[in-house]
Amino acid sequence: MNDVTLKLKPARRERLADVLYGQILEQIASGQMAEGAKLPSEAHICRDFQVSRPVVREALMRLQADGLVVSRQGIGTFVKSRPSDKLTSLAASAEIASYLRAFEPRLALETECAGLAAMRRTKAQLNQIGEALAALEGAFARGETGWEEDFAFHHAVAEAAGNELFPRLLEELRDILSGSMRMALGLTRQGSDDRRRRVLEEHRKIYSAISGQNRDLARLYMRYHLTESRARITGSHGDL
Amino acid sequence: MNDVTLKLKPARRERLADVLYGQILEQIASGQMAEGAKLPSEAHICRDFQVSRPVVREALMRLQADGLVVSRQGIGTFVKSRPSDKLTSLAASAEIASYLRAFEPRLALETECAGLAAMRRTKAQLNQIGEALAALEGAFARGETGWEEDFAFHHAVAEAAGNELFPRLLEELRDILSGSMRMALGLTRQGSDDRRRRVLEEHRKIYSAISGQNRDLARLYMRYHLTESRARITGSHGDL
Amino acid sequence: MNDVTLKLKPARRERLADVLYGQILEQIASGQMAEGAKLPSEAHICRDFQVSRPVVREALMRLQADGLVVSRQGIGTFVKSRPSDKLTSLAASAEIASYLRAFEPRLALETECAGLAAMRRTKAQLNQIGEALAALEGAFARGETGWEEDFAFHHAVAEAAGNELFPRLLEELRDILSGSMRMALGLTRQGSDDRRRRVLEEHRKIYSAISGQNRDLARLYMRYHLTESRARITGSHGDL
Amino acid sequence: MNDVTLKLKPARRERLADVLYGQILEQIASGQMAEGAKLPSEAHICRDFQVSRPVVREALMRLQADGLVVSRQGIGTFVKSRPSDKLTSLAASAEIASYLRAFEPRLALETECAGLAAMRRTKAQLNQIGEALAALEGAFARGETGWEEDFAFHHAVAEAAGNELFPRLLEELRDILSGSMRMALGLTRQGSDDRRRRVLEEHRKIYSAISGQNRDLARLYMRYHLTESRARITGSHGDL
Repeated sequence: MNDVTLKLKPARRERLADVLYGQILEQIASGQMAEGAKLPSEAHICRDFQVSRPVVREALMRLQADGLVVSRQGIGTFVKSRPSDKLTSLAASAEIASYLRAFEPRLALETECAGLAAMRRTKAQLNQIGEALAALEGAFARGETGWEEDFAFHHAVAEAAGNELFPRLLEELRDILSGSMRMALGLTRQGSDDRRRRVLEEHRKIYSAISGQNRDLARLYMRYHLTESRARITGSHGDL
Repeated sequence: MNDVTLKLKPARRERLADVLYGQILEQIASGQMAEGAKLPSEAHICRDFQVSRPVVREALMRLQADGLVVSRQGIGTFVKSRPSDKLTSLAASAEIASYLRAFEPRLALETECAGLAAMRRTKAQLNQIGEALAALEGAFARGETGWEEDFAFHHAVAEAAGNELFPRLLEELRDILSGSMRMALGLTRQGSDDRRRRVLEEHRKIYSAISGQNRDLARLYMRYHLTESRARITGSHGDL
Repeated sequence: MNDVTLKLKPARRERLADVLYGQILEQIASGQMAEGAKLPSEAHICRDFQVSRPVVREALMRLQADGLVVSRQGIGTFVKSRPSDKLTSLAASAEIASYLRAFEPRLALETECAGLAAMRRTKAQLNQIGEALAALEGAFARGETGWEEDFAFHHAVAEAAGNELFPRLLEELRDILSGSMRMALGLTRQGSDDRRRRVLEEHRKIYSAISGQNRDLARLYMRYHLTESRARITGSHGDL
Repeated sequence: MNDVTLKLKPARRERLADVLYGQILEQIASGQMAEGAKLPSEAHICRDFQVSRPVVREALMRLQADGLVVSRQGIGTFVKSRPSDKLTSLAASAEIASYLRAFEPRLALETECAGLAAMRRTKAQLNQIGEALAALEGAFARGETGWEEDFAFHHAVAEAAGNELFPRLLEELRDILSGSMRMALGLTRQGSDDRRRRVLEEHRKIYSAISGQNRDLARLYMRYHLTESRARITGSHGDL
């Protein structure tokens, strides 16, 4: 495993793409680039930001995957939806891409955790999930972001999966998850009542599926919750 | 997050269940408990091993999930298949359960990695996967276990997923994975030619699906490979 | 394939279990059996309804899967949630089980359709889905059940999957689907504004994921929609 | 639902694409177009076959999905692998595409059936699956294609799923499935011993997972079997 040089390169390219992603997102969030506006060409962006073509492509690909821009073949790339302008006050622009990337391993790991928890949870473990849910509702009622309660909820589900490696892997992601949750819930705190209601309902459904020992339902509701959380950050559903 | 006391308890229960799992497995592998033989009752095992009922249940549940025993409601638990007696010479009996448990997060994470790699791999990343595959074939040809080459293969797939968190999570599991792979490939080295051919073919199919940018195929072949690897350890398919 | 006799038996058992399912459901919906009430024992039900043990078990298993009753090992089976009493005015009680069963092949087929439609839909096909969505909104605004518009929506998604076998299979289910949709949307028409809003939002998200060519999202939103539709019929989420 | 005109159009386009797909496949199978050879440009094919651009694109897209050709952006489309020249003696060239298309709904439906069968099969249903498996082994031993036994196996799995709609949907596909199975097993009968061994092993694993009531395993092995069956037809794995 002497691939040190090779491993550094993609890491650096990712970071550059993150910085570029963040700067374009910042301009969209601030309204400098309005919805429907056409982005500069790839060649232009390369020149302006002094980065290589693969870096630009990766940043644009991620912006498109996040529903922020849309690319029309042969015509160009256009602003599709505008995230909240509060987003860039809650996280450094270069970190937003990295926070969003955390949803990929989370989807894989936590969907599995939720399904296993539905099959294996003890009563004590179910109570822990229920307590974290109640704590999250309390935090929302007090006008707090509730990110620690949110993390405790997801951690309790991982514990209930009955395999100590799942909470260990979640711990490994703790730093990036706490940043991601603070950003997401920071937006929710400043958002509509409807938005807070949805966040709580999504958690409640996960709890209820695990309580009812329904594996398919637990997997579905966890996947739905994580997907919607991500969409709430990028604003691709409007303020929901 | 002041759940320190509660978190220790399940961890300790898991370790006890691992020890018990390993000891029963050892007796099955050595032939002391023959195929078809009936295991002592839960109450008996509690007394003999001085452990609580939940510990016994967890150990039996895992033995059943691994296809080693089968439980017939109201009648008892019976030995179903016998793993290679070499198994207990390749790993301490208390570690085998823990190595097998590593397949759960691996299935979730690596299936996702394989699918993303099929969509995002660069040429350089594909070459790395191909080189690890060639190195594994070389190791097998030289009569080595090839576990480092195997780990390099799976690591290269994680790199190719284009999200630095995937290789980071695999690194977090490196210790347990290296033990697990050494055990699995140790058995394969001493097994039949057909067994080695299958291990290589499974890796080759993953490579080929990622090379062909076929996401569904890459996910399926990774899932199949990990599932078969686990079954080869517990012997639930015979010597294959 | 000379299994005519064997095939008839399970079919008949299913019908008997459907009748029994419907009668128990009727008593729960009407309030004759209140939430928390204990059901008679299996042996009792066998005697009262003059049916065999497997028929009773199947009916109870389905009631539990639908979230209507919960079984506590060694204690008995209890009423968990009460569907709307309007349910039994919208469908004959023996048909309800059969309508609910249609969700199993629908989940498998339509999740696949939605994913393929996201990858392959032509502009004309996307327009058809959009028109069916608009028609459904219109029907709701006029206070109609909108089941034909609902069927047209799902049929248009199947058409957009680019494989003529998918709409053909949906046509094969048309009779049972129309009964199922009439029942589901009949409840929704008499339900809360919030309930109608949810039904429309679920359809809108499927359309939007197919429009945005996001395969994973299209699959998730279709699976979520069908799962929630089923839960709205059995009332396992309350009136939502 | 007055979309008769619109529905005819895609149907006709599909049939034209099938004819074109079959003719190109015939030239690859016969060796007229060798592996590595470059296909004529889209515009050329339009002229030569007197069909529209979307028809050509669909045929090429399907050939690529089947692993028969590979498209390199900006360079052209090349022959990648060559199916057995016996293929075109077993089915009319225009039918091959349609037979291959049957694998899409089969993957969705039968994967679900296998998982449900693992949870719900009665002993009598398991015996039926086992008998169909033994009959398939017998047919192979007698040098027959065994397609009726193959269909009986898959039908018995659908019966065991405990929902009468699954076998009903499989019956709806009977004509196309019998053609597809006759073609696939016709190739296998003329193929290597290793190929027949694989086909039987795949069926045996499905049976064994359903017998062992392991839902995940049953789903995986059904998905793997259908995927490999398709690949054996197009020859994308060589003669396996």
